[in-house]
Amino acid sequence: MPETVIEINPQRLLTDLRQLATFGKLGTGVDRPAFSQADIAARRWLEGRMREAGLQAAIDRCGNVYGRSPGASKALLIGSHSDSVPKGGWLDGALGVIYGLEIARTCLEQKSLAAVDVVSFEDEEGRYIPFLGVKSFCGVLDEKSLAAIRDSGGRSLGEAMSASGFDGAPACFEPSRHVAYLEAHIEQGPRLEATRRRIGVVSGIVGIRRVRLTARGQADHAGTTPMSMRKDAGAVLMRLANRVLDSFESMAAADTVWNIGVVDVQPGAANVVPAQASMVVEFRDMDAALLERLLARLLELVAQAGRGAVSMELEEIARIEPAPMDRALGGVIAEASRQHGEEALYMQSGAGHDAMIISRTVRSAMLFIPSIGGRSHDIAEDTSEADIVLGCRVLASAVEKLAP
Amino acid sequence: MPETVIEINPQRLLTDLRQLATFGKLGTGVDRPAFSQADIAARRWLEGRMREAGLQAAIDRCGNVYGRSPGASKALLIGSHSDSVPKGGWLDGALGVIYGLEIARTCLEQKSLAAVDVVSFEDEEGRYIPFLGVKSFCGVLDEKSLAAIRDSGGRSLGEAMSASGFDGAPACFEPSRHVAYLEAHIEQGPRLEATRRRIGVVSGIVGIRRVRLTARGQADHAGTTPMSMRKDAGAVLMRLANRVLDSFESMAAADTVWNIGVVDVQPGAANVVPAQASMVVEFRDMDAALLERLLARLLELVAQAGRGAVSMELEEIARIEPAPMDRALGGVIAEASRQHGEEALYMQSGAGHDAMIISRTVRSAMLFIPSIGGRSHDIAEDTSEADIVLGCRVLASAVEKLAP
Repeated sequence: MPETVIEINPQRLLTDLRQLATFGKLGTGVDRPAFSQADIAARRWLEGRMREAGLQAAIDRCGNVYGRSPGASKALLIGSHSDSVPKGGWLDGALGVIYGLEIARTCLEQKSLAAVDVVSFEDEEGRYIPFLGVKSFCGVLDEKSLAAIRDSGGRSLGEAMSASGFDGAPACFEPSRHVAYLEAHIEQGPRLEATRRRIGVVSGIVGIRRVRLTARGQADHAGTTPMSMRKDAGAVLMRLANRVLDSFESMAAADTVWNIGVVDVQPGAANVVPAQASMVVEFRDMDAALLERLLARLLELVAQAGRGAVSMELEEIARIEPAPMDRALGGVIAEASRQHGEEALYMQSGAGHDAMIISRTVRSAMLFIPSIGGRSHDIAEDTSEADIVLGCRVLASAVEKLAP
Repeated sequence: MPETVIEINPQRLLTDLRQLATFGKLGTGVDRPAFSQADIAARRWLEGRMREAGLQAAIDRCGNVYGRSPGASKALLIGSHSDSVPKGGWLDGALGVIYGLEIARTCLEQKSLAAVDVVSFEDEEGRYIPFLGVKSFCGVLDEKSLAAIRDSGGRSLGEAMSASGFDGAPACFEPSRHVAYLEAHIEQGPRLEATRRRIGVVSGIVGIRRVRLTARGQADHAGTTPMSMRKDAGAVLMRLANRVLDSFESMAAADTVWNIGVVDVQPGAANVVPAQASMVVEFRDMDAALLERLLARLLELVAQAGRGAVSMELEEIARIEPAPMDRALGGVIAEASRQHGEEALYMQSGAGHDAMIISRTVRSAMLFIPSIGGRSHDIAEDTSEADIVLGCRVLASAVEKLAP
């Protein structure tokens, strides 16, 4: 029996992506945070496009747009999110949703054996709660204090949900129906471009630890206080920062990443000895045990640094566990890529995605396409049309192979 | 011939100090920046007290309050400043001025051989120009662009001078009259208290170098950008800060002080690789050659640090040369202190004073009394009444010894 060929329509794919980018358009990017007018309008439009494609579409009260393939008892779930960060790029999230739409539509048109359900999760970017929609979909959302959560401008999620007009029944993961989850996304980093690859297969989404290290000393006149009598929180923090960088360099695995992105020295005057100094250290890896070893090392360093006149403390401010993707599913994508003449690059995702949440519920895979200059979360974010089309063709071929 | 005894009036001294502290009173301190209503009123009051003491007093257009001892052809000049930093202490500057007033008054009352002129210089604290008044007095003020200088609130010095109503002829240093300058001041540091000494003799006022070191790299996603592809301005700056601290520790003399009081990391997000990071390094010492060696070392370190993907630059933002005090004059104060049963501590001043400017024109000496807890530039600044009185007695005894 010859393989069914799911032949997507590149022009229609690009037209839909460009159309979605008109909602909240901001220069070459979009400004479409969850539950903004632009986000709501975009979701209404998506629901319409899903219906036109022949899907049974609805928007649930969390804002998830969900289109079911009619007449199927088992389906692949393909999607991502259509909300954006403020002043974000046009492809982040949108790409994976429109790939899903285009592949589901093609399957229905071409009466493929493959059944595809499509989803656009709400608030992946965390205006209110990161991964709100996918958490609701997977039944892992803590519903209790939902309505009280507010965005940085003070608007509550309860208010936002009511004002949206979204009132559909919750879209839910169905264990007997959804055999796997596939998400395509722009890389948001430089590795594909740097290695001249066009398709990435995500081996997993890294875990994250984020800690704040704070030194507390005493403000003194930096001219009149002898060095031996100071309680210099700034100098202690700088010394510690170096030991942190040394430790990470020596303990890291090949793909571990770390960053000291926030440094605050108070009161912040050239002639005043710093009374307080803090930094936020963030580190990511696929190996949870390595993350714990790094965290333990930080605790040791903090204990050593805090022995003098300056006290030190460590506060954990974020913790996300690594989410490995399904190896077999990834292999199918890599094989599909090879079919299109491209050797895929296996890589970890250093950023979070809806797949991170749903992969704890169903086997999941992610496909990356290159980001020009590695840019994202910025209106400058872009990918060549050829790469966008290739990514969708590879994903369609993977769907073909996975069809029941 | 028996020594003349200048016996000051402790109660009058304290009353005048407390009275001066009512102008701009703020809790236990004062808020009396140059040319504020409180500063202007305090200077008018001072002028009146000088006249009541029998001095020929006037306020010049720069705000200097100057009281001349009548009938003398040679005089010692004693003073300091009566402006304060915002939310400052009650003794900083005021002490030296009221010591001058009390000693001059006593000399006149007791028909001492000693003739004392008294001065309160304007804007030592630099609301408009640090050392405005003493620079005018010494004829080293650059008059050209004076009026255009503005305070941090945007008020011009020209406006402030006009609004003050001060219109006296410039008070000037007189080479044939002023045989020496004496300034008493609170220590503004912890050394006297720590060594249980009550009188300090200032060997000199340290020179200052202040530089800003800036690293420029590139902002990138801290999750998706491999370590090897980053241009991390923050990490380069931290590494450099450590080398700076190492270098200063190994190159410093016993009394050298240094400080990294300002650190700025941009854009300042936990998950963004720092694009720019800067710090201000300040260092002080009596030895100008040492300051230059330290500066040269910083330039070397910056050149080394800037070799990679991150560029580094050094900008000198302040430079003040060391000002040694007169050794013989200091000896007279130390001897006077011994007469009062106190062994003086020879020490450098880590902070600037009017004496720093005028010492380049006439031989000068400074006497320090303890600051409780080393505090100053804060309303918590204080000194015991016993120490205040002792300081004035020691200075009066020194005046006695210096009388022509």
